[in-house]
Amino acid sequence: MFKKLLPDWFKQYQSAWLTGDVIAGAIVTVMLIPQSLAYAMLAGLPPQAGLYASLLPIFAYALFGSSMTLAVGPVAIASLMTSTALAPLASLGSVDYAALAVILALLSGVMLFVFGLLRLGFLAYFLSHPVISGFISGSAVVIAIGQLKYIFGIQTPRGGIITTLSGLLEGLPTLNVTTTLLGCGALLFLFFARRYLASILKQIGWSEKSADLAAKLAPMLVVIVATLIVNLGQLDQQAHVSVVGSVPAGLPSLSLPTIAWHDIRALWLPALLISLVGFVESVSVAQSLALKRNQRITPDKELLGIGAANIASALSGGYPVTGGFARSVVNFSAGANTPAAGVVSAIFMAVVVAVATSWFYYLPHAVLAATIIVAVIGLIDFKTLQQSWHYDRADAISLILTFLGVIFLGVEEGIVIGVVLSLAVVVWRSSRPHMAVVGRVPGTEHFRNVDRFDVELVNGLIALRVDESLYFANAQVLEDKIESLVAESTGTHAVLLIMSAVNQLDSTALGMLDELEKNLQAKGIDLQFAEVKGPVLDRLHKTDLGQRMHDRIFLSTHQAFLSHST
Amino acid sequence: MFKKLLPDWFKQYQSAWLTGDVIAGAIVTVMLIPQSLAYAMLAGLPPQAGLYASLLPIFAYALFGSSMTLAVGPVAIASLMTSTALAPLASLGSVDYAALAVILALLSGVMLFVFGLLRLGFLAYFLSHPVISGFISGSAVVIAIGQLKYIFGIQTPRGGIITTLSGLLEGLPTLNVTTTLLGCGALLFLFFARRYLASILKQIGWSEKSADLAAKLAPMLVVIVATLIVNLGQLDQQAHVSVVGSVPAGLPSLSLPTIAWHDIRALWLPALLISLVGFVESVSVAQSLALKRNQRITPDKELLGIGAANIASALSGGYPVTGGFARSVVNFSAGANTPAAGVVSAIFMAVVVAVATSWFYYLPHAVLAATIIVAVIGLIDFKTLQQSWHYDRADAISLILTFLGVIFLGVEEGIVIGVVLSLAVVVWRSSRPHMAVVGRVPGTEHFRNVDRFDVELVNGLIALRVDESLYFANAQVLEDKIESLVAESTGTHAVLLIMSAVNQLDSTALGMLDELEKNLQAKGIDLQFAEVKGPVLDRLHKTDLGQRMHDRIFLSTHQAFLSHST
Repeated sequence: MFKKLLPDWFKQYQSAWLTGDVIAGAIVTVMLIPQSLAYAMLAGLPPQAGLYASLLPIFAYALFGSSMTLAVGPVAIASLMTSTALAPLASLGSVDYAALAVILALLSGVMLFVFGLLRLGFLAYFLSHPVISGFISGSAVVIAIGQLKYIFGIQTPRGGIITTLSGLLEGLPTLNVTTTLLGCGALLFLFFARRYLASILKQIGWSEKSADLAAKLAPMLVVIVATLIVNLGQLDQQAHVSVVGSVPAGLPSLSLPTIAWHDIRALWLPALLISLVGFVESVSVAQSLALKRNQRITPDKELLGIGAANIASALSGGYPVTGGFARSVVNFSAGANTPAAGVVSAIFMAVVVAVATSWFYYLPHAVLAATIIVAVIGLIDFKTLQQSWHYDRADAISLILTFLGVIFLGVEEGIVIGVVLSLAVVVWRSSRPHMAVVGRVPGTEHFRNVDRFDVELVNGLIALRVDESLYFANAQVLEDKIESLVAESTGTHAVLLIMSAVNQLDSTALGMLDELEKNLQAKGIDLQFAEVKGPVLDRLHKTDLGQRMHDRIFLSTHQAFLSHST
Repeated sequence: MFKKLLPDWFKQYQSAWLTGDVIAGAIVTVMLIPQSLAYAMLAGLPPQAGLYASLLPIFAYALFGSSMTLAVGPVAIASLMTSTALAPLASLGSVDYAALAVILALLSGVMLFVFGLLRLGFLAYFLSHPVISGFISGSAVVIAIGQLKYIFGIQTPRGGIITTLSGLLEGLPTLNVTTTLLGCGALLFLFFARRYLASILKQIGWSEKSADLAAKLAPMLVVIVATLIVNLGQLDQQAHVSVVGSVPAGLPSLSLPTIAWHDIRALWLPALLISLVGFVESVSVAQSLALKRNQRITPDKELLGIGAANIASALSGGYPVTGGFARSVVNFSAGANTPAAGVVSAIFMAVVVAVATSWFYYLPHAVLAATIIVAVIGLIDFKTLQQSWHYDRADAISLILTFLGVIFLGVEEGIVIGVVLSLAVVVWRSSRPHMAVVGRVPGTEHFRNVDRFDVELVNGLIALRVDESLYFANAQVLEDKIESLVAESTGTHAVLLIMSAVNQLDSTALGMLDELEKNLQAKGIDLQFAEVKGPVLDRLHKTDLGQRMHDRIFLSTHQAFLSHST
């Protein structure tokens, strides 16, 4: 009974997998410590919130999720969205702020879990790739610019990108030189490490895999070195370098937040947007990793997994979490075989949280900001823009508008713009269908566009092929086309609509065809159909129009032409 | 030079059209007087706002619009939306409130006019018919319930439908008996007239057309009779019957409102929604009338026409206007040939406004409310629900959700829900495409579903036909299908994707195919295409994938099969 609830990977666990899982778990922990501190700072939360969000959620995901290698925890974009959602509701650093972050995680977790129970996993595919790319790039720019104040040790007012940039410019004369040296030094080293470290290590004889992994751990090295420098020089006192300070030691206590109605009213929409974005991000990361090993992930289970992880994060004083890209890739490359790798890293993290939080006292904020900037700059994606500009201008424009929307209007507005654009582009694309008047290629049963081929026509018959599903956005266009074809011709006694490309026919289009049939009939013209697809035909038969037209629906265009020739 | 700006109907005006236009103009005026007073009341505005909105806008539409018979002026739904938009911003009856209504009309007019210049007329078709039906029915219910307080002469608090209904119930003991008798009497007579008057008149020998038109003028009769009764009995004093009271005489003076930034910030979204709804309403009315006379309307010109009408309304102290259904039908039936009919009715209205506003003093609000209720109840549309429930469940559900959204969340929320549902249903429909593994019908060049037909297969070749355009919402579904087909089979050396129904291929789907091709190649399997449509093929050739696959794209499924048989 109880065993049934255990995940498959646990029941089928093989001892051969253990080494990979333990090594990957250890390496991910080294990456996770600076990340969880940095992303908590980005979310406007105390450092422990990031640490707590890296413990229980991993266990919860391991129970419900379907990816073998996804690393769940604090991530950049969800942290940015958390800070955006909470900024208007509570002052930064207050107890209320942290409590609202917990509620946000709980709402998001419950939504995702319920969506999972309702099997709404297909929602992962309701955002087009260019829109996701524009959203992530825009968020990365917003995050990177928001971190610059820590690099220079300047205070800036909270607000949009313009406020932040002008605050930075105004504040530059007051910058803290020691902080700036630490921050810029960390930035330079991290950029250098990202670019060249792996190849240098390979040249001195490391294996490709170890070199790549070691390069990914550069942030931990910077964090250790910077912490030592600040500690030795007592730079927090001597040079006013802003540091993490004391972090409460000990594991988080479990508790459910008290939630007031007005919290739900204020947070449901941000929670929904964070859920959507986090889920889409997780699924795409999990999917691309799973494909490399011929594994499969199940979007419905991912909803349950990410949902459970967020509920666990809320129970243990964290904030919204999801599957992160960089950490998952490291987990995968370091040889993780199952979510046991995550469990190992959660256990290591628990040890750190229990005994070692004092080590972070002298860690400078400027260095955390540098790790964030380098991480998110890697998310800026020019390639998709370039490709889609080349291949499909409408996709490229959606990408750019979503990108600009995130930067200038805000991250929540950006994702709403993205969703609407994703949907609107689909409708826009099919709203002006390709249509061709066709005739018969002499001596064959083939029919081709009269404008391109030398074809035979039947007197008084207009045969029109429409290359799109018919629905509200293009029904009128088709009607206009037919009306104008009829108006231009003389002696027309029949209009044949060839529906070989009509995969769907919605009720708006059906209503249009019904009206059209009556209007044409009133002028003594028969409306006829040919090559109607099975599913469309089945539905059509149930309607008045289908009943009236039952002897005017032809299997093939050829048969329709024959009926006129005789 | 100046002549070029005049509309075609004016330049080509024939004297034979004049009689029809004058008669129609006169009849519409009789209908327009009570309507403009009633809809101003519905919008929360003083009566003169309704009268002013029935003057200049008609001239402006006549200059720019494309419909010969559309009657532009105050309408029920735009009035409701005006009151919804302004209620939170200014107190009812205040000078600010009327000034904001003018700004709303101006914003809406400028938006529509600019959309017209940008040729965005296709926006009229971005709402599905079921969603429009649900929106109109829901608005009608909200309007009718909102008018009941006038019928009974009770005060209710402003608010949502629940507040209104409970206010009505609580207020019932305090109802004004005389008002209730007048209101219910008017309601009963108007329902009777709507139902039976035309057929009674026909039985006593009237022509069908005159009988129908006379029945439409019943509201004017009720208004006259009720005004006389109240006047003779001095019921406003004796029985506290609420009446229209004094309306300033004289034509409106032209002026531009002063607009502050915060007004634009508060009103741009309501203005956009009113524009969208008003435009969609106008176009569908204008189109259905134009079709009956084999005329055509041009959505781009309608944008200019309705836009100009709203700007004119704003200049002359009115509020948002659009083309109304009932009035346009009467205009059409009464024999209007050109917008000159509208100009005639505007001139009659101008005379009324100039000299006769004192006649409305004793007109009871209860009777105006009765005319509104009877008018909007006619807008409630069960037929579309019934038809779409039968034909297409997804459409029916969109209709119901939009209807409920308007009633319980509000009219603006309702239209937003409607737009999102319209778009989402399109995506949802095509997100699970029909796919079939096909084989060759023996001895032919035809290929059919292996599950339905006895067909020949080629060893090691999987031929899959997908019956939908490929894009972000279904790209993953196709990939999953192909991956699982490959996983289930052994010895596969090629996967043939038959794209005869793929009208579009967006960049998300292209990216998926690119990945898939590489993944299959890594397993030693060739991805091949057949029957790729011209426009899709042209684009494909420009991509990396198209270059890699150039010798694996077959014109027909038959040729692809032949290449494997040899």
